[in-house]
Amino acid sequence: MDAKMFREFGKAAVDFVADYLENIRDHDVLPSVEPGYMLQQMPKQMPESPEDWKHILSDIDRVIKPGITHWQSPNMHAYYPTSVSYPSIVGEMLASGFSVIGFSWICSPACTELEVVVMDWLAKFLKLPAHFLHETEGPGGGVIQGSASEAVLVAVLAAREQAVRRERERQPELSESDIRGKLIAYSSDQSNSCIEKAGVLAAMPIKLLPASEDLVLRGAALKAAIERDVAAGLIPVICVATLGTTGTCAYDDIESLASVCEEHNVWLHVDAAYAGGAFALDECADLRRGLDRVDSLNFNLHKFMLVNFDCAAMWLRDANKVVDSFNVDRIYLKHKYEGCTQIPDFRHWQIPLGRRFRALKVWITFRTLGAEGLRAHVRKHIDLAAQFENLVKADSRFELVAPRALGLVCFRAKGDNEITSQLLHRLMERKKIYMVKAEHGGRQFLRFAVCGMDPKPADIQFAWTEIETQLTQLNLEADQQPLENRKAGEIAELTQHLTGLQLQMDETLQR
Amino acid sequence: MDAKMFREFGKAAVDFVADYLENIRDHDVLPSVEPGYMLQQMPKQMPESPEDWKHILSDIDRVIKPGITHWQSPNMHAYYPTSVSYPSIVGEMLASGFSVIGFSWICSPACTELEVVVMDWLAKFLKLPAHFLHETEGPGGGVIQGSASEAVLVAVLAAREQAVRRERERQPELSESDIRGKLIAYSSDQSNSCIEKAGVLAAMPIKLLPASEDLVLRGAALKAAIERDVAAGLIPVICVATLGTTGTCAYDDIESLASVCEEHNVWLHVDAAYAGGAFALDECADLRRGLDRVDSLNFNLHKFMLVNFDCAAMWLRDANKVVDSFNVDRIYLKHKYEGCTQIPDFRHWQIPLGRRFRALKVWITFRTLGAEGLRAHVRKHIDLAAQFENLVKADSRFELVAPRALGLVCFRAKGDNEITSQLLHRLMERKKIYMVKAEHGGRQFLRFAVCGMDPKPADIQFAWTEIETQLTQLNLEADQQPLENRKAGEIAELTQHLTGLQLQMDETLQR
Repeated sequence: MDAKMFREFGKAAVDFVADYLENIRDHDVLPSVEPGYMLQQMPKQMPESPEDWKHILSDIDRVIKPGITHWQSPNMHAYYPTSVSYPSIVGEMLASGFSVIGFSWICSPACTELEVVVMDWLAKFLKLPAHFLHETEGPGGGVIQGSASEAVLVAVLAAREQAVRRERERQPELSESDIRGKLIAYSSDQSNSCIEKAGVLAAMPIKLLPASEDLVLRGAALKAAIERDVAAGLIPVICVATLGTTGTCAYDDIESLASVCEEHNVWLHVDAAYAGGAFALDECADLRRGLDRVDSLNFNLHKFMLVNFDCAAMWLRDANKVVDSFNVDRIYLKHKYEGCTQIPDFRHWQIPLGRRFRALKVWITFRTLGAEGLRAHVRKHIDLAAQFENLVKADSRFELVAPRALGLVCFRAKGDNEITSQLLHRLMERKKIYMVKAEHGGRQFLRFAVCGMDPKPADIQFAWTEIETQLTQLNLEADQQPLENRKAGEIAELTQHLTGLQLQMDETLQR
Repeated sequence: MDAKMFREFGKAAVDFVADYLENIRDHDVLPSVEPGYMLQQMPKQMPESPEDWKHILSDIDRVIKPGITHWQSPNMHAYYPTSVSYPSIVGEMLASGFSVIGFSWICSPACTELEVVVMDWLAKFLKLPAHFLHETEGPGGGVIQGSASEAVLVAVLAAREQAVRRERERQPELSESDIRGKLIAYSSDQSNSCIEKAGVLAAMPIKLLPASEDLVLRGAALKAAIERDVAAGLIPVICVATLGTTGTCAYDDIESLASVCEEHNVWLHVDAAYAGGAFALDECADLRRGLDRVDSLNFNLHKFMLVNFDCAAMWLRDANKVVDSFNVDRIYLKHKYEGCTQIPDFRHWQIPLGRRFRALKVWITFRTLGAEGLRAHVRKHIDLAAQFENLVKADSRFELVAPRALGLVCFRAKGDNEITSQLLHRLMERKKIYMVKAEHGGRQFLRFAVCGMDPKPADIQFAWTEIETQLTQLNLEADQQPLENRKAGEIAELTQHLTGLQLQMDETLQR
C-alpha cells in the first residue's frame, strides 16, 4: 500500500469511525452472535496476495461490527466506562504514524518529555500533592502504564523488593528466601481481582481483609491484621487501598490506613482507577483526603478523561524505589541525568522495556477538551447517575443497595435475588442495555454505570424504561404460572444463557 | 469536538502522517534537541478552554516532530526494526474507534475471535508446529501480548507456578517458601535484559550462562549448570533461549537445549522476538529446528511483520498451564467454554486484565500485504543487509565480527576499540544515521540493522558512504595531531557526548 492509497483508506476509515460513533444508538449494545461465529466465516489461512482496502473495510462492517460489544454506546452500563473521544482517536493514529519506541530519552525525546508534561498537567488538574509532580524537586513523578493491573503490579513488586532489602539489613541472620517467605500484603475484599492477581504474580500473599458493613476498608482492620501477622513473624509489605471499588464504588479510608502504614513502614498504594477522575472537582475534594500520605496511586484515563485504553496514569512519591528495584542496566548505561525525574528513563518505571507514545493522545485530548471540558464530562456522569438514582427511588418495586457514587448506581428489585437475576437475564436477552450484577452480603444487585462516549439524559430514560418495563413484564408472566414451575424452568434457562454469555461478575470488572 | 470536526481533523492527520512518512528522508534520523527542550516550550498547566485542532496539529510540527527519533526512517539502523505500515496505522485508528476492552468473549466477541484467527494465520505462515494452533484439538494456542518482555515474563511466571505445584507434590515435607527459595532459571549471557528483569520481577534468579565462542547457548552448557544446581539442592524451572540475540542475532541451539529440558522437566521458552519473522522463509527452515519441542515462544510483529508496536505474538503448547497459574476468578465465573482454546479467555493468558483490540491491525495488515508481501519484506531486509555486508568486506579498513544474520551486520573498524568508538561518536554527532554499539570478548563493534518502513538499496549505500567517509575523516584528523593529545581530548569529548545522548548499549536493545 503506498501513501496515495493510504490517504484514501485512512480518510475512508475516518468517515467509518465518525459514522459508527454518530449512529451508535442504532445498534443493540450487545451483539447477537454465538461463540465461534467468526471462525466459521474466516479463511483458514491469510491470503497469499494483497487484497483491496475497500474489500477489507466492507468486511469490517460485515464480520467485525456484528461481533462488537459497543462500549461507546450510551446504552453500555456494565463494568465502568471506557470512553474514547475524537481527539484521542486522532492522537492514537498520529502516534502509530510516528511509531517510536520510547524506552529511553534518545529513542525519541518528545516521547519521554511529553509524558512528563502531561503527567504534571494531569496531577495539577486532579489537585494531587506537589511531591507527585516531575517539576517539583525530588524523586516523585508520574508515568503512563498500560493498565491499572500493571500499575498495581509495579507498586506491589517495588514494595516487595524494598522490603526485602530493608529486612536483609535489619535481620542479617535470615536468608533472602526466608525473608521472602514471610512477606505479606493487604487489600480489601472489595478490591479488584487484579490486586489478588498481583499477589499471585509477585509470589506474595495478599490478604483480602473484610471491608466494613459500608464496604469501606479502614485503618482499624488493617492494624489488627498487621499486628496479628507481625506477632506471627510475618513482614507486612504493602496495602493496596481503593478509591472507587469495582462493586459499589466505595472509598477506602485513606487517612486511617495511612496512619497504620506509616507506623509499620508499609507501602500504601491507592487504586483510584475510576474515582480518580473526581479529584478534579471541588465538590469531591473529600476524596483526596490522605493522598499526601500515600506512596503511589493510579487512575485510568479511559474511565473519565476520554483518552482511549490503554492509558493508566500512575504517580510515585519516590520513583527511585521502583527504578532501584527494576533496573537491570549495566554500569556503562548510567548517565548524567540519572535520578533526575525531569528526564526519567521510564523503562525502569514499568514492567516491559518497550513503550508506546501514549502521551500524544493524552496531550491532544486535554488540549481539545480543555480543563473545563474534562470537568464537565465528569460532572455529566455524576448528574446522569443522579437522574437514574431518582428514577429508582421513585419506583417502589426497586431499592438502592448503596449510596450513588459518582456515575454508579447499585440497585435491585425488592424481594429475593431471583427477581433481580431474572430481570438481568431478560435484559441481556433483549440486548438493549448492558449491565452486570454483583453481590454483597448475600444480596445480588445490578450495577448501573454511566458509560459511553457521549451519554445524554434521554439515554438514561431509555435505560430506565427498558428496566422497569421488563420488571413489569416479568411480574405479569410470573402471575400466569405456578410459582414452583416458574422457578425451576427459568433457573435452568437462566443458567444456560448466563454461561453462554460468559457473564462477568464483579471480580472481573474492567480496568 | 463533534463528528464533523473529527472528520476534518482526522483527514488532516491522515495527510500529516502520509506527508511525514513519504518525506521521512528529509529529516536527520536523530533529533537535534537537548534534554529538557520541550519542558521549556510547554505551558505549565493544561489549557482551561478547548483549543482548535489546527493549532494543535501545527504544534505537532513545531514541538513534537523536532524531538522525534525517526524509527521509520531508512537511516535508522539502531536496535532492531520497529516498522509500521499504512494498513497497520489504519487498523490502530479503527481499533480506537471501537475502543472495546476485550477481557472476555462477551466484552466483544470479535476481539477474542479475530485474535484466534490471526494467531492461527500467523502460526501457519511461520510454519510453527500444529500444536500451537487454536484450531488443533488440545490446549495449545497463540495470544497477542504487549511486548516481548511481557511474553517472557508470562512464561517465567507460569513455569514458576507449575514448578511450585509439582514440587509440593513431590516433596510434601517442604514448605512453599522453602520450595520457592530453591527455584532457579537459565538463559544465555547474550539474551536481552528483559529476561534478567523477568527473573527480578519473578523473584527467581535467572543464571545467565556464558554462550560459546560463537555466542550460541547449547545443551551441554545448560546440562552442566542444571546438574550442578540439582546437586546443590536447587530446582530448575525454565530455560529462556533466544533465536536472534540482541547483540549479534545469534541462534541458540534449540534441539540440544530441548533434550536437556525434557530430561529435567524444565520449561523451554524461545524468545524469537526478531528472528521469528524468518520462520516463514523456506531458505531459513533451519531456524525452526526444535520448535516442536518447546513449551512457548514469542515473536514481535513490529520487527518483521509491519504491524506497529505494541504487538508481541506468543504461542503456548499448553495454555492451561498459564491459565491455571494466573486465574483468580471465582467459581461462578466458570463457564462452558472453559478449557476450549477456540474461545479462550485471553485475560488469563497475560499479566493485565484489560486488552486492546490489537488483532484488528494485524488482520488488516496481513490482508493488505498478503503472505507474499510479508515474505518479500523479510527477504528485502536480508538482501539489504547482504548489500551492506559486501560493502564492509570490500573495505580493508573494516572487519565483520560475526556472520551477517538476517537483517543485521556486526562490524568494526580494524584496530583498537577507540577507533570504532570515535567513529560512532562522529556519526551520532552528524545524526545522518543511527547505530548502537555492542561489545563481546573485549571487542567493541557496531550493529547495522536494516530498519525503517521502506528501506531501499540507495539508503544502504547512503549509510555506507556516511560511515566510510567519516572513518576517512577521522583518520585524516588523527594524522594531524600527536597521538597522546588526541586520545585524551577526544575521550573527554566523547564521554560528554555519549552521556548526553544517553547512548543505549546492547543490554537495552528495543523489544
